[in-house]
Amino acid sequence: MTEVKPRIGFIGLGIMGRPMAENLLRAGYPLVAYNRSSDKVAALVEEGAQAAENPAQVAERSDVVITMLPDTPDVGEVYFGSQGIMTRIRPDHLLIDMSTVSPAMARRIFANAEAHGAESLDAPVSGGDVGAKAGTLSIMVGGSQPAFARAEPIFQVLGKSILHMGASGAGQVTKACNQIVVALTIEAVGEALVLAQRSGVDPAKVREALLGGFAQSRVLEVHGQRALEGRFEPGFRIRLHRKDLHIALDTAQSQGVSTPVTALVHDMMNSLVAHGYGDEDHSYLIAELAGRANIELS
Amino acid sequence: MTEVKPRIGFIGLGIMGRPMAENLLRAGYPLVAYNRSSDKVAALVEEGAQAAENPAQVAERSDVVITMLPDTPDVGEVYFGSQGIMTRIRPDHLLIDMSTVSPAMARRIFANAEAHGAESLDAPVSGGDVGAKAGTLSIMVGGSQPAFARAEPIFQVLGKSILHMGASGAGQVTKACNQIVVALTIEAVGEALVLAQRSGVDPAKVREALLGGFAQSRVLEVHGQRALEGRFEPGFRIRLHRKDLHIALDTAQSQGVSTPVTALVHDMMNSLVAHGYGDEDHSYLIAELAGRANIELS
Repeated sequence: MTEVKPRIGFIGLGIMGRPMAENLLRAGYPLVAYNRSSDKVAALVEEGAQAAENPAQVAERSDVVITMLPDTPDVGEVYFGSQGIMTRIRPDHLLIDMSTVSPAMARRIFANAEAHGAESLDAPVSGGDVGAKAGTLSIMVGGSQPAFARAEPIFQVLGKSILHMGASGAGQVTKACNQIVVALTIEAVGEALVLAQRSGVDPAKVREALLGGFAQSRVLEVHGQRALEGRFEPGFRIRLHRKDLHIALDTAQSQGVSTPVTALVHDMMNSLVAHGYGDEDHSYLIAELAGRANIELS
Repeated sequence: MTEVKPRIGFIGLGIMGRPMAENLLRAGYPLVAYNRSSDKVAALVEEGAQAAENPAQVAERSDVVITMLPDTPDVGEVYFGSQGIMTRIRPDHLLIDMSTVSPAMARRIFANAEAHGAESLDAPVSGGDVGAKAGTLSIMVGGSQPAFARAEPIFQVLGKSILHMGASGAGQVTKACNQIVVALTIEAVGEALVLAQRSGVDPAKVREALLGGFAQSRVLEVHGQRALEGRFEPGFRIRLHRKDLHIALDTAQSQGVSTPVTALVHDMMNSLVAHGYGDEDHSYLIAELAGRANIELS
């Protein structure tokens, strides 16, 4: 017995969204796509997708709508704009926002969907364009258990680690926590390696020594090595990580949580973006510390 | 053919030093001991050590002198005081300071020893009293290759991972780097877990989710769990970690290195010590953040 696959609407065919949509097409899902610049839709049509002219049309012609957009305002426009998804919302709809946005936006979508009898999930990812292509993303999901169960076969096409974190917004909160820890650990590794080098101790040896003990982290392993080799091509761009820390700070403020180091590292990323380094990998934080000490690690 | 073991002088029989001295006794090293409060020496004499009345006597009656003291001023007094080691320094001496002190103090001891034709190593450790008892410390060593080779059989009694990091001071620099990364990672984990809890997401689930990805670290694993259980008995006391960050900041300043987040976390530890929490485990940083947000994680 073969199950009839739901029609998927896909909005946002950027560096992440396009390979995700392609994986869903390959898995046999009927797919209708929309993107602000239409050439990306045309490319996907050649692979079997249908084209839509705006988010409202996508909603009209699909059962499950997935959005993968750069930032909170983009998501606001696609859901709540004059040609947005919510203009055609139906009770049988499942809306899945896989963008990284504020938990508040996730809850706003959820409340609106619920008011129309529809379901929604926030499901931000980590794993980058490599994970998107390979279908090995980590997916952090917030929303009801039935909605999660309904979305699970779709998530399994896109990702490897699929975690139901709690009610609406819980996926975005988890992503914000992840981005805090990654950013602050990069900074920690940078301060240590620059101090080592400037004090005349081989930072490669220090990285090795620290990896064997309590200072071990994936960031020390991966970005420590990157910094030692002077490789700062993205990867994950500073301007995007800055955006994610901004979401974390916004959420912290609204919840009355003190996050002093997140605030400081966010400000350092602001400075890097202002100085023209927004498109470098986020590990460029380490190069910036090295520059302040007038050295290079590589 | 059995080699004649060098006579070891051991100064500093605290929570770390005493089990280290006991391990050396058990390994068959003749040992002469000194400690500021003499009752600790008496206990070690019952296990086969000889007692000395001051550091100068220790130096006189031993070939290798090991010091394991709380802070840089203690080390200064024991080496350079009026009854200090340096008053009896001989060309055949090997001096090993295993305390965590400034790289500058390590280089001062080295220069003085060298001027008398003697050898010295800085060899701070990590692994805590558990590692000291089990003989599984990590030992980060700075100094010449011949001195390192001469000390290696002794280090093998005390530790498991024994790393020669470079010239004099390199062991202390490595330890400072380690303490920076551990402190800042604890703070990162704290800001994330408190944000999660206050936003209504189970911090235990967030810890699990983050451990599976790029935010993974030993600190998240161990101290994340500690914080969730509300266990803040030391472990490693805040006042000692504050001391270590002070060494890191001093070194950073003398080398012209910018370490803004280390400075901020050091200041947070200052505040905790001032408020009477100096004897809590360093992971109490997380409890403090939770307190600011008016929650408990456990």
